[in-house]
Amino acid sequence: MTSTGPANEATQSVREPRRARQIVLVGLSGVGKSSVGAELAARLGWPLLDTDDLVRARTGQTPAQLITGRGEPAFREIESSVVAEAATHEPAVIATGGGAFQAAANRRALGERGLICYLQAPPAEIARRLRADPGGSDRPLLAGDLEDRLRELEWERRPFYALADTWVPCLGLAPADIASRILGRWSADGARLLEAPGRLERLGVVDAPPVPAATVDTGTARYPIWVGSGERLRLPERLRELGLRGRVFLVSDTHVIEAHGADIARTFEAAGIAGASYVIPAGERSKALRVAQELYTWLASERAERGDVIVALGGGVVGDLAGYVAATYLRGMPVVQVPTSVLAMNDAAIGGKVAVDLPAGKNLVGAFHQPAAVISDIDVLATLPRRSYIEGFAEVIKHAFILDEDLLGLLERNANAFSAMTAPPELLATVIARSSRIKALVVSADPEERGLRSILNYGHTIGHGIETAAGLGEYLHGEAVSVGMVGAARIGARLGITPEDVSGRMSALLHAFGLPLTAPGVDPRAVLQAMRLDKKVSGGRTRFVLLDGIGAARLHADIEPALVDDVVRGLVGA
Amino acid sequence: MTSTGPANEATQSVREPRRARQIVLVGLSGVGKSSVGAELAARLGWPLLDTDDLVRARTGQTPAQLITGRGEPAFREIESSVVAEAATHEPAVIATGGGAFQAAANRRALGERGLICYLQAPPAEIARRLRADPGGSDRPLLAGDLEDRLRELEWERRPFYALADTWVPCLGLAPADIASRILGRWSADGARLLEAPGRLERLGVVDAPPVPAATVDTGTARYPIWVGSGERLRLPERLRELGLRGRVFLVSDTHVIEAHGADIARTFEAAGIAGASYVIPAGERSKALRVAQELYTWLASERAERGDVIVALGGGVVGDLAGYVAATYLRGMPVVQVPTSVLAMNDAAIGGKVAVDLPAGKNLVGAFHQPAAVISDIDVLATLPRRSYIEGFAEVIKHAFILDEDLLGLLERNANAFSAMTAPPELLATVIARSSRIKALVVSADPEERGLRSILNYGHTIGHGIETAAGLGEYLHGEAVSVGMVGAARIGARLGITPEDVSGRMSALLHAFGLPLTAPGVDPRAVLQAMRLDKKVSGGRTRFVLLDGIGAARLHADIEPALVDDVVRGLVGA
Repeated sequence: MTSTGPANEATQSVREPRRARQIVLVGLSGVGKSSVGAELAARLGWPLLDTDDLVRARTGQTPAQLITGRGEPAFREIESSVVAEAATHEPAVIATGGGAFQAAANRRALGERGLICYLQAPPAEIARRLRADPGGSDRPLLAGDLEDRLRELEWERRPFYALADTWVPCLGLAPADIASRILGRWSADGARLLEAPGRLERLGVVDAPPVPAATVDTGTARYPIWVGSGERLRLPERLRELGLRGRVFLVSDTHVIEAHGADIARTFEAAGIAGASYVIPAGERSKALRVAQELYTWLASERAERGDVIVALGGGVVGDLAGYVAATYLRGMPVVQVPTSVLAMNDAAIGGKVAVDLPAGKNLVGAFHQPAAVISDIDVLATLPRRSYIEGFAEVIKHAFILDEDLLGLLERNANAFSAMTAPPELLATVIARSSRIKALVVSADPEERGLRSILNYGHTIGHGIETAAGLGEYLHGEAVSVGMVGAARIGARLGITPEDVSGRMSALLHAFGLPLTAPGVDPRAVLQAMRLDKKVSGGRTRFVLLDGIGAARLHADIEPALVDDVVRGLVGA
Repeated sequence: MTSTGPANEATQSVREPRRARQIVLVGLSGVGKSSVGAELAARLGWPLLDTDDLVRARTGQTPAQLITGRGEPAFREIESSVVAEAATHEPAVIATGGGAFQAAANRRALGERGLICYLQAPPAEIARRLRADPGGSDRPLLAGDLEDRLRELEWERRPFYALADTWVPCLGLAPADIASRILGRWSADGARLLEAPGRLERLGVVDAPPVPAATVDTGTARYPIWVGSGERLRLPERLRELGLRGRVFLVSDTHVIEAHGADIARTFEAAGIAGASYVIPAGERSKALRVAQELYTWLASERAERGDVIVALGGGVVGDLAGYVAATYLRGMPVVQVPTSVLAMNDAAIGGKVAVDLPAGKNLVGAFHQPAAVISDIDVLATLPRRSYIEGFAEVIKHAFILDEDLLGLLERNANAFSAMTAPPELLATVIARSSRIKALVVSADPEERGLRSILNYGHTIGHGIETAAGLGEYLHGEAVSVGMVGAARIGARLGITPEDVSGRMSALLHAFGLPLTAPGVDPRAVLQAMRLDKKVSGGRTRFVLLDGIGAARLHADIEPALVDDVVRGLVGA
């Protein structure tokens, strides 16, 4: 049997690089590059080149032995020569050692023909996997406290990993799913990504350029999250970086515009950016179809076009409302989220869930519409009333418990400073960046809430019930979630799922931040009734996200109604 | 240099078929299987097995020579043996001869390991390409009138092509784009599609099962369009086939419910399907946010869940409104479109563009939300008022001119019967099925209107202007589009783009159907003003879809405003 080989057609019609017949996996040691690489190689029928294996084949020694015996620089030299050779093979899947991507020469060599995929997972998650893996001891760079060391390495390497063509979340996804995600990106965009102007120059930089605090990459949308001091005044620059050159339609509320409107207007004016703004009354009542209609009418009167951009400057209400309007006006316009509350920075602004409320329930009308960027300026938090500042940390604490024990330690050590609103800007930025990273990773893995993303609902089932039952504004969202987390921890403890000390640590931390642990006086029947109407309830059964431990949240179905009933009654003191 | 081969990992962890390391291309002769196959092979680094080439290699004769010399049955026998051998190779891209997929044994063999992709294009488009291709003469099965023969073959083979795992539009897309679409599907869904229960049995059927009149396959969503007599009474069965087992929320209008409500209610009742219905006032005024809000409130009071389904029973207003509500309620519920007007069957119901109007303009608020199915029952058309029946044919005639000359002939030969509403059901079903197929193909190629889909706007630029300027309800949509098509033909003719005889044939056909060619008395300044506000106008310039010939529509930018002005004045008799 003869076959028409691919080589002829390929060389005749288009020059080689457009094919992207090389997929390169980078990321921390232990994130799963080898297993994902094997899966990719099996599906594509391509060879898998593992640079650690190639080092072994060439020297007869493992990277661990080389580093221990001859020192890291000697190992890196050998690794570079192996990388350079691997990079000439095509087609191929190339899995690199965790540090290989730090050298500019390696990055350039790998980028020449390869689509570079950054496999990311939280250090805590990687540490858990490595501890379970007997081969994990053969990683000398991870000597010492495993998790601490992984965090250090991530910190050091993130600016370089950020240069990858695509970011792939490795959280709650099997190697086969991760491979599908990579192949989807490769088939849709491989050639275009490889030919992005200036790509090889960027890969070859020696000093890493500033990188966003976090990046969301859903496979079809990718966007940065910038966290820092003064970010709001960099908006014109950020819009330019994003290629958003149309007019700016700014949506904000009465409180926020009073505090920050003049600054931002001046910034846009100085940059020569045209646009208009619309200010809604502050408060949840504005998150309504009636107000969305006002915004549509305004956009129509301004003749907004698809190439213009909506900037949502405010808390969750502004973000959800303006995001929903952006999702639906002209069947979709870009939106940049500029959250101004701790809560919005850590929750609503990231992930593309946009909605308005109906009288019958919150968020009943909405869409998934990923923003073009999230810009979190921590300077604006100083102007928040204390109660609003504090409530936002309920979501930060949630992120720490469900996925980031290190963040948890940071919060515990600094609870008093946060509670007094005296945390220094660097600390505040660090905490919000880490928390954003957790949210970004989870929504990257599951953008339309089909599975993993439900862990973000930790504390929200009872929390929403309390919010609704107490009446609008009685409990702030974060306060209700705080009580809800205590409730979820108690349910978990009673079922023997959540260890008692986890439950205790949670109550202590929430308390230290000044967040409520109970909701005295709220009618328990109303809470339970509201929980039954929640979108998260399916077929009448209440499902709960519970903690198996710190950093280990899981959805549990079919929780005994009598137990829920009892815990809710305990929370409201009934 | 050593490399870790993929074979070990693959066989150890998962059994082979899950990998889908074989991509099979089927479709009519000339649709582009070889060039798409070459592109796929080049990107994947897999061999391309072309069954026609393999026949040549084995016998020393081309398929054409074999068929001419030894007869088709002898050729088919050789082809089957070649297909059987090709199907054992892995990985591989397999391009089949146009008729190879008709034999049950071949289908089963190809389906064993291969993801089967049906490349589809209208026969007229294929004929155009074959005429331009010098190798095209070596296709003996295409002897005689090329286009007629292609249409015959398509008719004969469509039921079998319909069994493919994925449908790929080859219209306005380069081989590289088509390859990307196939690879996207392969990477996201290849394994799942190959393991669909009963797939091999379906592939192996001898008598083709009934197939939908058309299928939309956007790469992420695939759904059938059923066209026929009595289809509305098969709704419960269709919902079952689609796996929609929740409650049914029926949205309709006062006119439609009076004519068909009882029938359909009985049908659901007999099938034991629970649900509720909501009736809106007939007419464009109902396509408003206010009415959407009523529907949301109704769905909330009924506790609709994401697993339930909205059925939109009515014309374009009901379809657009209910589709928009489905796109946004709970961030998206499934919707089944059951269009009851000629216009909706050929236009609004297919393609997922859903919207409501604002006072400032039509369709300003909306989304892209593909339905789960479109069910067109031609029996309901008999109850339409004549004016509404006739207006719908403006879109059918548009589809014929932009993409299907054969449909054009059918309409010309039967214009009197349609105009008198006496066309027999079979003819009506055939015409609507063909027209649906054109729309399905275009939206499959370009679901979010980034390019090709704009050809569907033929006649709509001036048409929308007339609709708006004349005032709501003065001109029905199809009537305005009819005048708009005459205008576009005149602009094309004045620019030397559209041949005079095309323009003449268009006016004659529209006239024969009883559709207007002019809009006397409408204010031309108002028409031009409304055109400037249209979503299709970008940066103030009016772009027009014009006909280079029959079946050859193209977007032209920068049409001289004075020319447009003059043509519009001519149309309104000013």
